[in-house]
Amino acid sequence: MSARILIIGAGRSSAALIKYCLDKSEELSWTVTVADADPAAAAAKIGDHPRGTSAWLDVTKTNDRSDLISRADIVVSLLPAHLHLEVAHDCIRLKKHLITASYVSQELYRLGDEARDRELIFMGEMGLDPGIDHMTAMQRLDTIRAKGAKITAFRSFTGGLVAPESNDNPWGYKFTWNPRNVVLAGQGTAQYLQDGKLKFIPYQRLFSTVWNINVPGQGAFEAYANRDSLLYREQYNLDDIPTILRGTLRYPGYAAAWNALVQVGLTDADFPILDSGKITYHELMEALAPSGSGSVKDRIAGMLDVPPNGEVMDRLVWLGLFTKKRIRLRDATPALILERLLLDKWKLSPDDKDLIVMQHQIDYELDGKTFRDVSNLTMKGEDAEDTAMSRLVGLPMGIFVRLISQGSIKATGVHIPTMKEVYEPVLEEMKSFGMELTHTTEEI
Amino acid sequence: MSARILIIGAGRSSAALIKYCLDKSEELSWTVTVADADPAAAAAKIGDHPRGTSAWLDVTKTNDRSDLISRADIVVSLLPAHLHLEVAHDCIRLKKHLITASYVSQELYRLGDEARDRELIFMGEMGLDPGIDHMTAMQRLDTIRAKGAKITAFRSFTGGLVAPESNDNPWGYKFTWNPRNVVLAGQGTAQYLQDGKLKFIPYQRLFSTVWNINVPGQGAFEAYANRDSLLYREQYNLDDIPTILRGTLRYPGYAAAWNALVQVGLTDADFPILDSGKITYHELMEALAPSGSGSVKDRIAGMLDVPPNGEVMDRLVWLGLFTKKRIRLRDATPALILERLLLDKWKLSPDDKDLIVMQHQIDYELDGKTFRDVSNLTMKGEDAEDTAMSRLVGLPMGIFVRLISQGSIKATGVHIPTMKEVYEPVLEEMKSFGMELTHTTEEI
Repeated sequence: MSARILIIGAGRSSAALIKYCLDKSEELSWTVTVADADPAAAAAKIGDHPRGTSAWLDVTKTNDRSDLISRADIVVSLLPAHLHLEVAHDCIRLKKHLITASYVSQELYRLGDEARDRELIFMGEMGLDPGIDHMTAMQRLDTIRAKGAKITAFRSFTGGLVAPESNDNPWGYKFTWNPRNVVLAGQGTAQYLQDGKLKFIPYQRLFSTVWNINVPGQGAFEAYANRDSLLYREQYNLDDIPTILRGTLRYPGYAAAWNALVQVGLTDADFPILDSGKITYHELMEALAPSGSGSVKDRIAGMLDVPPNGEVMDRLVWLGLFTKKRIRLRDATPALILERLLLDKWKLSPDDKDLIVMQHQIDYELDGKTFRDVSNLTMKGEDAEDTAMSRLVGLPMGIFVRLISQGSIKATGVHIPTMKEVYEPVLEEMKSFGMELTHTTEEI
Repeated sequence: MSARILIIGAGRSSAALIKYCLDKSEELSWTVTVADADPAAAAAKIGDHPRGTSAWLDVTKTNDRSDLISRADIVVSLLPAHLHLEVAHDCIRLKKHLITASYVSQELYRLGDEARDRELIFMGEMGLDPGIDHMTAMQRLDTIRAKGAKITAFRSFTGGLVAPESNDNPWGYKFTWNPRNVVLAGQGTAQYLQDGKLKFIPYQRLFSTVWNINVPGQGAFEAYANRDSLLYREQYNLDDIPTILRGTLRYPGYAAAWNALVQVGLTDADFPILDSGKITYHELMEALAPSGSGSVKDRIAGMLDVPPNGEVMDRLVWLGLFTKKRIRLRDATPALILERLLLDKWKLSPDDKDLIVMQHQIDYELDGKTFRDVSNLTMKGEDAEDTAMSRLVGLPMGIFVRLISQGSIKATGVHIPTMKEVYEPVLEEMKSFGMELTHTTEEI
């Protein structure tokens, strides 16, 4: 039951995980090593905990990496996704369990037989999204299927938002996760199934196609479609389902204003603006506006076909896009210019609380009737450091470390957390960290 | 004066170049070696010419490559652009001149001093666009500047089209060059200067913003903006010019119909359609259309706000986008599906003639008056093999080989063909291959 835990990576998403492991270390006889290219960051997270150690690791140094892994029993990799594979090969060779919060690549899946032969578990997608979404969805789907019901629709929506009491900007949004991913969100073609028909939404129409979602106790949200809905048919054993849709939640009004940024051209990441170092935001908007008389703002509003002093333009004005301030970024793409502007405008204040909201809607037929099962998950953060986001990403990995070390996981091979032996104990323990789960069922 | 010429690459753009070199080889005491990973392709281009040799070359095999280069005096690289640099390093080490038709990368420019020290010339952008565009523009600009005029506007438009007598489809377009580049054309943000103001056009508005261009003897064209106009300020010594625009020419109606493909979502290359192997073109369009009553075609027309039986929809129908034929491409992006469809629909027939059209418009002030100098270049191909495109890409390199071998190039270092000692003789000789150049000047 004692175990040596190695956590590779001491960045933004590591705090809740490291704290969990240190808090459990006495009771469960763990030692916890945190390795990072920045040894000070690793040491800061460990503090003076008697069961914690920090280590310097350049993950490209094969020997150093192998050496650290050889002295662990369970490895948690918080590295960028493309670096997991080398760690996974070490874990196969040195016979160590592995946990990540990243999407499982085809290459990683191919190590399944070798992991199984060595009685190892490699668990990927063990964070929030992917992670908690799999576990909460499978918990409801398995429960409903156990009744003998036929599932006819699965819709799932997740948002990493700011809590209402910290929501003090017109966008209703602040960054709690990778800003670049927020700016580039939706590029590609969103794909889903509606009543047996494939539906595709290209990027330029994505943010003008929204679903209204109500979450009891939290109010109204809007959702835009994710591009990966079809992938979930197989993972959730829903191969013949007629309706499947995954979406991202925002407070109402966000999508229309973001759509304006897309249509103006501020989310393009393909080609740098050659003069971006020399111009102001106002000049950038002038360059993107149709020529003609009237202010830049009026011409942009006219192009977008929105009122010049309405909600959409108010949000654009609030960002400072019409100010004569220098951009001060050389050869930057529009998307990078926007990202830098938003980093400032959408920064969490130290006392801000974030809010994670997730809703699954599952329609099913049973005994000749049709029902809708709606499950809701919410979690609020404490402040800008201890965010709901970092807890929901980090704690499932910590809990899964505990499950392995206590011998309660029978599965071996490469997996994502869709099995009952994983989701039941993880979701149960998550409640003690403030994650609220409710569900209702009604005939429709 | 005798010279050993090595041409690396025997693909689509090589025919006119190889023929030129072989035709000149007797008179100028050249030997011509054509090396390719496909030795049969190289041998076919050489035929039984007594001064020609073919060679097998895997360009990644350093020793083989060095060996071939060491036995040449002038190297022409027709390799994909990212492979030029290794050849360039060989040419520095082995003291050989180098010619390419590709854009000169920053890395290649950095070899300038070493090339100059060894009295070598490395000439890039020596094709059509880039290439002929530089030469024809600089010829006019230098002539106008020599009068003491002040240049106030430079607009340049180029199109690789099909000749009117071979124009038998509603798009007025067939492929004479890389189909993938045609499908992805314009992704990024087009940037230009208009009356001293920067203007940017994002992709989703690019094909609805067109310029009408008239070319004497050829008729009316439309142009959409290229993304690189600003780059040409420095290259053409036009740093303070208030208006600079480069664009791509098409027959009228093309841009509106291509815009429809963009808006429908058929040019996205970011994310594969997961079910693309199982569905028909009709189902693809259904998935992209708004839901509702009426035919898919009518709903697409409604979304685009164009008449259901008008010119735009006629072009979409002609492509077969509403037929119930299987797509038969697994996990293909919309852009790849469109490219495969167009490869069939826009294929040159064996007897089809292509047409290259280029127009520069140069406005200038002289003696208190304002003038517009308009130069036009046209060239028609013979058939689907001997295209104007392949001649205009290949022949400038061949002519430049001649200029080097005859000792008439004084420049050393890394260059693009903006110097008089290059453009004058090249443009003069190009006339003998059917390239027509005219210009007119009038007060405006």
